Amino acid sequence: MKLVTAVNIDKPFIGVVRAEQVINVTEVAASMEKDFPASLLEGIISGEDFLTRIEELARSEEARNHTYSTNEVNLLAPIPRPSKNVFCIGKNYRDHAIEMGSEADIPEDIMVFSKAPTSVIGHETGIPSHSSITEQLDYEGELAIIIGKTGTGITKEDAMHHVFGYSIINDITARDLQQKHKQFLLGKSLNGTCPMGPWIVHHSEVPNPENLSILTKVNGEVRQEGNTSDFIFDIPTIIAELSKGMTLEAGDIIATGTPAGVGKGMKPPVFLKRGDVIEITIEGIGTLRNEIVE
Amino acid sequence: MKLVTAVNIDKPFIGVVRAEQVINVTEVAASMEKDFPASLLEGIISGEDFLTRIEELARSEEARNHTYSTNEVNLLAPIPRPSKNVFCIGKNYRDHAIEMGSEADIPEDIMVFSKAPTSVIGHETGIPSHSSITEQLDYEGELAIIIGKTGTGITKEDAMHHVFGYSIINDITARDLQQKHKQFLLGKSLNGTCPMGPWIVHHSEVPNPENLSILTKVNGEVRQEGNTSDFIFDIPTIIAELSKGMTLEAGDIIATGTPAGVGKGMKPPVFLKRGDVIEITIEGIGTLRNEIVE
Repeated sequence: MKLVTAVNIDKPFIGVVRAEQVINVTEVAASMEKDFPASLLEGIISGEDFLTRIEELARSEEARNHTYSTNEVNLLAPIPRPSKNVFCIGKNYRDHAIEMGSEADIPEDIMVFSKAPTSVIGHETGIPSHSSITEQLDYEGELAIIIGKTGTGITKEDAMHHVFGYSIINDITARDLQQKHKQFLLGKSLNGTCPMGPWIVHHSEVPNPENLSILTKVNGEVRQEGNTSDFIFDIPTIIAELSKGMTLEAGDIIATGTPAGVGKGMKPPVFLKRGDVIEITIEGIGTLRNEIVE
Repeated sequence: MKLVTAVNIDKPFIGVVRAEQVINVTEVAASMEKDFPASLLEGIISGEDFLTRIEELARSEEARNHTYSTNEVNLLAPIPRPSKNVFCIGKNYRDHAIEMGSEADIPEDIMVFSKAPTSVIGHETGIPSHSSITEQLDYEGELAIIIGKTGTGITKEDAMHHVFGYSIINDITARDLQQKHKQFLLGKSLNGTCPMGPWIVHHSEVPNPENLSILTKVNGEVRQEGNTSDFIFDIPTIIAELSKGMTLEAGDIIATGTPAGVGKGMKPPVFLKRGDVIEITIEGIGTLRNEIVE
């Protein structure tokens, strides 16, 4: 099941995507006078029966009256406003660590930084070039984990039970700011530099998240071609490490790192400019597409 | 005006602290059937007349019926759940940068990292020792800025108009995790490692935030003795740098860095253990007191 946050006329709604169509389940619930979470984030936080409720609404007779062509709606990020910074794993693919420096940059311990929630935008939304602030805007295609169940000290064995689903994040990075400020937060948090989407795919439809091809194209040219099987720190390890003494909460988002092939790793480096279109395709998830604007 | 979030019997309320007493302005507003923000964070976000409304409520006849001794209430952090990670400025005092390494560690450019909102606790709340995760828990006394007005690309000239008020943060740090994971987030985000409070003092009562003594004691022994006049990056610079391309929002919290005298800087280093009491006193703000527990 592909879950979206979208808008048509006015308010954002929760939608289910099926074959080029979006069922507005928020409207379906309202028409049946059923209580329903106000946002996808609230729904994920509400617990495991959220998905059952959505399935019932999407299957109901009433659903036909609230089904739209994907052309009629605009997708927002599935979680347009996370309730904390987006967690990001640094250098989680061996070849990317090397392209950013040398073999010495392959981490022995997990590296975690964050992107401010104000940086989140949706599929097909323009990424500001921030040309007055950075000359080195770069892309990073990444699988994102959406936490579904709150926990602290989660064991590796139990970790996958805490996953609600998966999405795609483009961890757009101002390389000059990343380097200049040493800690990554500022270089990773410019407005609009966390494209996320187009949807969240529930974990039940992603049987093996550790074996998904990930492909990033810029203006149609393949730049990154990796597979999540190359993670240095796999998903259970990420969840166990992050939740050691720090509560991971339902709705938390973790970007799992990017494979080799970023602009900074090219010889010579090539950075993003206005008009560039970045498409990230992850097997079994979808394609996240954004253009650099302004 | 000192503004608190506190609880007595049930729900958290907004309070005004005056002479060992707390006026429960949430109750005052309810008794007068006035609409009132549900939390201090909502109030700050609601805009500049929030303070006027609080002043009116606190001055009203009705206020007498809703005034409690400070012993009768428990203070929470003034913003118990920030809507994003707490921004922290690294190495913003020259002597602290040197004690953490050498002269080479004095930053030329501002360093910004964050603490997860799950790490926030209030005055007099126990800080977990996390003894199974870290052997190097350390304190950092810091002045915290509370943003009152949202903005992007805020100029230094305009920066102080974006400040709502000030508080105290103890940026408790697991030094071993901070070092091991390179990016600071994990070592800075263990549950309960962001004591904040006891209150927010409105900026109108802090005419010169760049000239405040800051004193940290552990079990009564003076460890840090600094002054915010020693900031490498002053408050207007911090606000201007953070808001370059990243929207700073009302309710955002910025910890401004710590002076020399942390446990790691002692020879030999001395870290926190169960039973240790840390008190941070900032001139014109107050004293934040927390004990290491478990």
